[in-house]
Amino acid sequence: MTEHSTTPSVLPDVQPAPAGAAGTSDAVSTSVLTVFGQQPIGRIPVLDVQPIVDAGARPTRAVVNELFNVSATVFREGHDAVNATVVLVDPDDAEHQVAMRQDNPGLGHWTTTVFADREGMWSFRVEGWSDPYGTWRHDGTVKIEAGVDVELMLEEGARVLERAIDEVDRPPRHVAILTDAITRLRASAHPAWERLAAGISDEVQEVLAAAPLREYVSASPSYPLWIERQRALTGAWYEIFPRSEGAIFNWETGLWQTGTFASAAERLPAIAGMGFDIVYLTPVHPIGSTNRKGRNNTLNAGDHDPGSPYAIGSADGGHDALHPQLGGWDDFDTFVARAQAQGLEVALDLALQASPDHPWVTEHPEFFTTRADGSIAYAENPPKKYQDIYPVNFDNTPAAIYAKVREVVQVWIDHGVKIFRVDNPHTKPVEFWQWLIADVAVDHPEVIWLAEAFTKPMMMRALAKVGFQQSYTYYAWRNTAAELREYVEELSTQTAHYMRPNFWPTTHDILTPYMQTGGTAAHLIRSALAATLVPSYGIYTGYEHVEWRNRPGAEEHLDNEKYEFKDRRWGQHVPGREDLSGWLTMLNRARRDHPSLQWLRNITFHEAENDNFLVFSKHGGGAHDGSDRDTVLVVANLDPHHVRGTRLHLHLPALGLGLDWDHRFRARDLVTGNSWVWDRAPYVRLGPGYGQEPVHIIHVTRD
Amino acid sequence: MTEHSTTPSVLPDVQPAPAGAAGTSDAVSTSVLTVFGQQPIGRIPVLDVQPIVDAGARPTRAVVNELFNVSATVFREGHDAVNATVVLVDPDDAEHQVAMRQDNPGLGHWTTTVFADREGMWSFRVEGWSDPYGTWRHDGTVKIEAGVDVELMLEEGARVLERAIDEVDRPPRHVAILTDAITRLRASAHPAWERLAAGISDEVQEVLAAAPLREYVSASPSYPLWIERQRALTGAWYEIFPRSEGAIFNWETGLWQTGTFASAAERLPAIAGMGFDIVYLTPVHPIGSTNRKGRNNTLNAGDHDPGSPYAIGSADGGHDALHPQLGGWDDFDTFVARAQAQGLEVALDLALQASPDHPWVTEHPEFFTTRADGSIAYAENPPKKYQDIYPVNFDNTPAAIYAKVREVVQVWIDHGVKIFRVDNPHTKPVEFWQWLIADVAVDHPEVIWLAEAFTKPMMMRALAKVGFQQSYTYYAWRNTAAELREYVEELSTQTAHYMRPNFWPTTHDILTPYMQTGGTAAHLIRSALAATLVPSYGIYTGYEHVEWRNRPGAEEHLDNEKYEFKDRRWGQHVPGREDLSGWLTMLNRARRDHPSLQWLRNITFHEAENDNFLVFSKHGGGAHDGSDRDTVLVVANLDPHHVRGTRLHLHLPALGLGLDWDHRFRARDLVTGNSWVWDRAPYVRLGPGYGQEPVHIIHVTRD
Repeated sequence: MTEHSTTPSVLPDVQPAPAGAAGTSDAVSTSVLTVFGQQPIGRIPVLDVQPIVDAGARPTRAVVNELFNVSATVFREGHDAVNATVVLVDPDDAEHQVAMRQDNPGLGHWTTTVFADREGMWSFRVEGWSDPYGTWRHDGTVKIEAGVDVELMLEEGARVLERAIDEVDRPPRHVAILTDAITRLRASAHPAWERLAAGISDEVQEVLAAAPLREYVSASPSYPLWIERQRALTGAWYEIFPRSEGAIFNWETGLWQTGTFASAAERLPAIAGMGFDIVYLTPVHPIGSTNRKGRNNTLNAGDHDPGSPYAIGSADGGHDALHPQLGGWDDFDTFVARAQAQGLEVALDLALQASPDHPWVTEHPEFFTTRADGSIAYAENPPKKYQDIYPVNFDNTPAAIYAKVREVVQVWIDHGVKIFRVDNPHTKPVEFWQWLIADVAVDHPEVIWLAEAFTKPMMMRALAKVGFQQSYTYYAWRNTAAELREYVEELSTQTAHYMRPNFWPTTHDILTPYMQTGGTAAHLIRSALAATLVPSYGIYTGYEHVEWRNRPGAEEHLDNEKYEFKDRRWGQHVPGREDLSGWLTMLNRARRDHPSLQWLRNITFHEAENDNFLVFSKHGGGAHDGSDRDTVLVVANLDPHHVRGTRLHLHLPALGLGLDWDHRFRARDLVTGNSWVWDRAPYVRLGPGYGQEPVHIIHVTRD
Repeated sequence: MTEHSTTPSVLPDVQPAPAGAAGTSDAVSTSVLTVFGQQPIGRIPVLDVQPIVDAGARPTRAVVNELFNVSATVFREGHDAVNATVVLVDPDDAEHQVAMRQDNPGLGHWTTTVFADREGMWSFRVEGWSDPYGTWRHDGTVKIEAGVDVELMLEEGARVLERAIDEVDRPPRHVAILTDAITRLRASAHPAWERLAAGISDEVQEVLAAAPLREYVSASPSYPLWIERQRALTGAWYEIFPRSEGAIFNWETGLWQTGTFASAAERLPAIAGMGFDIVYLTPVHPIGSTNRKGRNNTLNAGDHDPGSPYAIGSADGGHDALHPQLGGWDDFDTFVARAQAQGLEVALDLALQASPDHPWVTEHPEFFTTRADGSIAYAENPPKKYQDIYPVNFDNTPAAIYAKVREVVQVWIDHGVKIFRVDNPHTKPVEFWQWLIADVAVDHPEVIWLAEAFTKPMMMRALAKVGFQQSYTYYAWRNTAAELREYVEELSTQTAHYMRPNFWPTTHDILTPYMQTGGTAAHLIRSALAATLVPSYGIYTGYEHVEWRNRPGAEEHLDNEKYEFKDRRWGQHVPGREDLSGWLTMLNRARRDHPSLQWLRNITFHEAENDNFLVFSKHGGGAHDGSDRDTVLVVANLDPHHVRGTRLHLHLPALGLGLDWDHRFRARDLVTGNSWVWDRAPYVRLGPGYGQEPVHIIHVTRD
C-alpha cells in the first residue's frame, strides 16, 4: 500500500512569557492550555495579523523598499488605553519598531505602513501593549475637568512620567522635557488646569510617541517575510526566438539560414533602445527529430522544418546543452555579456519535458512513465496525444529528478542567467517547485522565476506561495474596463503580498480575439495598459508590427514561430507595415521616469461616465523619504474601433499630492507632450489609430 | 522596565513525510524550505481548511452529534484525478475517515459534513490524494470511446483494480466484485465497450468509494476539535434573584422578609413545569454595607435596603460564602438537589469584584489597585465612580489571584454547580479566562461558562475562542427582520464553530425600547424568536407578567431587582396582570419535541413581501441516522402594534424533506394546533395580542 499520511501539528512550541516580568501573568503555568488545543492568547490579545500567507506557513513577500500595510486586531479588557507596534526583524536579527494607529476602534483594528530596506529573510510580528500614559492622559483629563480626584490624578501623572524616564531609554533632551513636565505637574501652587496641561502637552506626547512606555507587551506569532530585489516586482520584458533573429530565407534554395546567438545579439541594442529591462529567450536546447512537428503544429515535419524548441533533447544533448546551430557556449556567454552591457538581463525558458530523443530517455527511463506495454507515455490530454513530448514523471524517482533539474539550472546560472520563465509549471508537482526555488535561493537569492501558469486560480496562487516571484495572468482575457478594474484590484490587494503579476498583451501562444480584430489601436491600448497597470509586463517580438493574423479557430498566431523561422526584416521599410517601437519606447521611458509606475499596491481606480473608459492613477509606493514618489493618471478608451468621449470623475484626494476635491492640477500627457489644467471632472476624447491617442498617460503635478 | 515581548514562532516543527514511502518525494530533503520560511506544501496541496479558529491556535468547537461542514482547497498538477478525505481523530486516537466531494472544481473546493459522537479533545485534518482509479476511469472511457490505446487502457484498468485489492483492506465480497471486474477487463474475446463497462460499473465504483485506492496522500496540519456536551449548545434558561423568591413585604412594619434557598426552591416546580432546563441564580454571597446602593441605584441606601448582590463580600465572607439570610450550605445543597430532581441544572453568577467589605480587601490588598494616596481604587468609568465596588487588578499578583478564583469555583462545583454565568468577563484579562476555563476542564469538562459580554465583537469572539461555551449577544438590540436575519446568519455560519449565542429578550439589566413600548405582543414575539432562532435562550423572571416599565431615560427596569426585593405573588390572581407562563411552556415544549430547534447551524431564512415579517426554517442538524431530524418553520410579525398580512416566498427544497418547488406540505401550527396545506407562497395574517398569534411555529411534514 503506497498510502501514507503526515500530520504536522499546527501548534507551534508554546513559548510562555519570560518568568518574573512584572505585572503579567507569567507566574501562571500555561501548560494546561495545550491539553485543550489552546495557545496562550497573551495579556493583550493580538489577532488576525495581516498580510500573512497560509497562516504563516509560507512567507509574506515584498521587494526592497516596497511599502505595504500591516494590520491586526488588538484590544484589551476594561477602559485602559491599548496600543500596538509592528516589529520588523531584519536578516541580522536587529529589530525595527513601527508605531501602528487604530483606524477602527469599534473593531480594534490597527494598521500602519512598513517597508524593508534590503534583501533577505526578515520576519515581522505585531505587539499589543497597555499604554499607561495614554490611560492617564484620558482619565486625568476627564477627571480633572470634572473636578474629581484632582490632586491624586496630577500626582499619578507625575508618576507615569517618572516611569517613562526610568523604564525607557531616551535622549537627554527628551528626558529634560519629561522632567520639566513632572515638576509642573507637582507645582501645587499653580492652577490644576495649568499643571494638567504640562502633562499632556504636544511636546510630552511627542516624546512618548517616539519611545512609548509599554506595559504588558504581548506579541503575535512571528511571521516570515522574504524581501527580494526590485526586479522581482518590476521590469519590462521582451521575448524572442533566438533562431529567428538574423534568420534569412534563401529564395533560390527555398531554405532558411538559421539565426544564431551572434546574430541575435545584433538585435539587443534595439531592444535596449526601446527601454526594455529583460530579454527573454525561448528554449535554446537541441530539438528532437522523432515525431517533430511541422509548420502550424502539423504532425509530419518536412526535412527542413526546425521543430519546436519546446521538444527538447536530441543526440546533441538535453536541457543543459545548446542547440548546435545557435552556437557554442562562448557564443552564448558573449550574448549574455552583450545583453548586460546594454543593461538587459537575460531570461531563459525552463520547459521540463523531453523529446523522445532526449538523453534522459535512455539514461534515465525512470524519469518517465512506462505503460503496461513497456512503452514510454507521451504527453496527453485524453484522448489527445502530443507525440513529440514525453512528460517527466516526478513520482517515479523524485530525489534523482530533483537533483538533475537542479544541476541543469545551475548550468545556466553559471552562464549568467538569473531569470527563468517556467513553461507550464502547473503540470509539475507544486512541491517540486517549492524545493527547487528554495534550493537555488540558498546560493542565488537573486534568481527570479516567472510562472507561465495559465490555469485555475488556486494553482496560480499556490505556485506564487511556494516561491515563484512572478506569474503570467489572465490579463490577455480581461478586455473591458470593468473586467480590468476588478482583476487589478484583486491583484493589487488580495494577493499582492505573495503573487506578482506580469501582464502580456500577446505571447507566442496567445493572440486573443481583441488583438485579432482591434488592429493598431488594440496594440497601442493593450501595451499601454500592461505597462502602466502593473510594474511587470512583457512584449512578444513582432508586436511592433501589429502581427494580428490568427490560425483559424485558434487564439494563436498564424504560422506560429514555435514551428518555423521568422525574418522580421528589422529596420527595413515594409510598405503598409506598422512600427510601434516608438510607442513602446515612450511607454518604457514613462515607466523609468515615473517611480509610481514601478509599484503594484499603489493603484486607485477612478470613474468615467462612459463604460469604455478605464481610468486609474498610481501614486508613490516605494521607499521612505518621499523622494521617489510621483503621480501618474492613465485614461484609456478601450474601444479600438471608435473615438469616444466621456466626462471623468476623479478622486482628487487619492491622487496623493495633497489635492482636495475643489482643486485644479496640471495634467501633462506623456504620450503627446500636451499639457492642461484639469479639475475633478474633465472631459476627454480619445480614439483609435496611432497618432489619435487611445490613451492619456498623464503626469500629475500641482498647478 | 516592565516591557518584554515573547515571540512564539508560527512555524510548527516540520514533519516531512515518512522516508521511503513509494511514489512521493520523501527522499528529497525539505530542510532547505525552512530557510525561507516555507512549510512543505505536500505532494497534493491541501489549503484553506475550514472551520478553524485563529489558524488552529484555538480549537474548533462542536457538541456531541452536532453536524458541521469541513472544507478545503485541494488540487494537483496536470490532468490526473484528485480526491480528498476528512480524518477525525477521537480522544483515543482512533481515526475516522469521511469522504469529501468537490462542490466547485474551478476553485478546487472540497466539502463534507461530519460530526463527533462523544465529548473530549478530538482533532481533524484533511487529506488530499491522487486517485488512480478515478484517473483511469476518466482516461479509459475517453480513449476507448475514441479508439485510442484500447487494449492498453483495458489492461491498465485491470492493473489499477489489482492494486485496489492488494493495497487496501476490504471485505471478501468487495474483493470478489473487483476480481470479477478484472477478469472481464481482460476478456479479450469480448467487445471493448463491454470490458470497459465491467471496469466502471456502479458496483465497482461503490467498492472503490467505500475504501478508495489512495496515492500520494498529503495531510493538512492537524487542527484541534473540542467536543462538549449538548447543554453547551442547547438549553432554556430561567433567571431568578433567590432572595425575591418567597420574599414577603410586611405592610405593618414596612419591612421585607427575605426569601431563602428554601423558599426559592418552592418556585422550582413551576420553572421546571414551564419546561426550562436551567435555573440561573444571581449572586448568593454576602453583600457589602460600605457605600451600599439603595433603590434604583441611589447612592445612599436606607437601613433596610438589601444591597446589590453584585457588591460581593462582607464580614460574613466573600465569593466562596453564602449570604447568611439565604441559608446555610445544607440549604443550598437542598436547593440544588431539588432542582436536579425537577430536571433543572443550577447556574450561578460569577462576578469577580469586591465590595469594600470583602475579606480579600484586608487579607489580599494586593488583589486590588492601590492609588498614589494609598487608597484602593474604586471601579470607574471616568469621571464616573462606582464606590460600592473594588475591581480586582489581575496584573498585581496574577498567580495568587488565579489560584484564589480557582478555589472559589471549585467550592461551587463541589456543591453541584456545573454552569457559571460570568458577569462582565470583558473587564478581566482574556488570558485569565483562558487559563481558568482550561484548568477547570481538566477535572470537570462538563462545566459550562456563559459570558455576559455586552461589548465589542472582537472581545465577544475572543472570549468564545479561549473557552466560553456560550455568550450573551446583541439579540436584545436586533429588532427588525433585516437586522435579525443578518445577525443570525452571522452567528449560525461565520462564528458558529467557536461561539454559541444565548438569546435573552430581557435581563435584570436590559429592557429595550421595543420591550418598553411593545407590551404583551412584544413579549410574545421576542420570547418566541429567542426560543426558536437559536438553541439557547433565557428568560428573566417576571417576563411572564410583562413587566415593561423602565427607569426613565434608561434601558432598564424601573425599581431594578438588583437593589430591592420583589414579591411577584406567583399563582395569585392580580387583576389586569398578564400571565405568559402558558406561552413559555408552549415554546419549551416545541423545543423539546422538535429536534431541529435544538441546533444552531441548521437555519434557513425565507422571504416575505412585508418587511415586518421574519420567516425562517430549521431542519435536522444533529446525529447521523436521521432519526432526530424534523423541520420547523417560523413566521413572525415583528410589529407589536398592528395586525399585518403578507405573502411568503418559501424555499421549499431548503425545508429539507425532499420537497420540490411545486409541492405542497402540511403546516401544523404548534402555537394554536391549527393545520393547513401550504404551497411555496402562502398568505399569512398575524397580529399583536395574546390569542391573536403574532407568531406561527409550524411543524412541516409532507402532506
